[in-house]
Amino acid sequence: MNLGDIAGEVGVHKSALLRYFETREEIYLHLTAAGWHEWARALHERLDGRTDATPATVAAAIAGSLTDRPLFCDLLAHAPITLERHVSMESVRSFKLSALDALDDLVALFTRLLPGLGTSGGRNAVAAVTALAAALWQTSHPPDTLARLYAEDPRLAHAVVDFAPRLEHLARAVLTGLLASAEDA
Amino acid sequence: MNLGDIAGEVGVHKSALLRYFETREEIYLHLTAAGWHEWARALHERLDGRTDATPATVAAAIAGSLTDRPLFCDLLAHAPITLERHVSMESVRSFKLSALDALDDLVALFTRLLPGLGTSGGRNAVAAVTALAAALWQTSHPPDTLARLYAEDPRLAHAVVDFAPRLEHLARAVLTGLLASAEDA
Repeated sequence: MNLGDIAGEVGVHKSALLRYFETREEIYLHLTAAGWHEWARALHERLDGRTDATPATVAAAIAGSLTDRPLFCDLLAHAPITLERHVSMESVRSFKLSALDALDDLVALFTRLLPGLGTSGGRNAVAAVTALAAALWQTSHPPDTLARLYAEDPRLAHAVVDFAPRLEHLARAVLTGLLASAEDA
Repeated sequence: MNLGDIAGEVGVHKSALLRYFETREEIYLHLTAAGWHEWARALHERLDGRTDATPATVAAAIAGSLTDRPLFCDLLAHAPITLERHVSMESVRSFKLSALDALDDLVALFTRLLPGLGTSGGRNAVAAVTALAAALWQTSHPPDTLARLYAEDPRLAHAVVDFAPRLEHLARAVLTGLLASAEDA
């Protein structure tokens, strides 16, 4: 992912993008915030009105909607490490407030679908599935050197990760486990 | 974390470190691999010989041992994004083989403690708890600008994360959920 690719995707020239934003990091943070809102909308489309939701159906919707959003998955890993650390305080404030709006909306959606979670379980669910998606996206999309290594060296074959089914399985486990621990409380 | 800090911790001068490694990234990858082995040893110390392990006791050992290892938690997030992408193929091969050794050892430990997981559940457990630790470590250790923002702006107060209890809670949920889905299979 580089600025030229982003400009191409948005349909403008790189120099035009740089006229509106101070740095590359600022552009990526804007795209991350937009990604949170678009992902929330996609989950609403898949899940609104369902009255028979289970950890399995919610996990399938999470994995499907995130698999459709490779740039957002990539940005999820980059935001805390590189992006949030290299922009002004005002940029990071508006990013955080915008992302938290979408996040609160997702917490409400998950809690409505799986009432046993409670608000705290809903928050933990969103935090956990996005952390898992961020990590799995990176390991399932290795750089060229690593991809060649995985193909060549049989000792590394099981390091290869298939993003969508792995995320669905882990998201389902997290939701099941959070429901069980909420019942204990 | 910078090279000077690392050199200070290891007790040598920065220039001495750079004599043995080609780049800063190579040093960090070595430290990440060493971190995997030290973490595995710490978990063995806490858990070997236990015959009454539950998701709760294993999660407590995971969270405790990772809380003791802030540099490893930080490196876990950096390895796939920056480190593995900026070293030679041979460096990344030796890193991966070393890290996978420790990882396989942890899978065997988890599977022995919680036999219901099976090997595939054990693999998922290690992948999930390290992904969660990596993400939670970053959000619970924000850069100065973000930390000031959280302190100043009440709308952002709930973005603050307390690493150890949050990781313990999520690790327990993941282990509980993976055990439940292994039973279904």
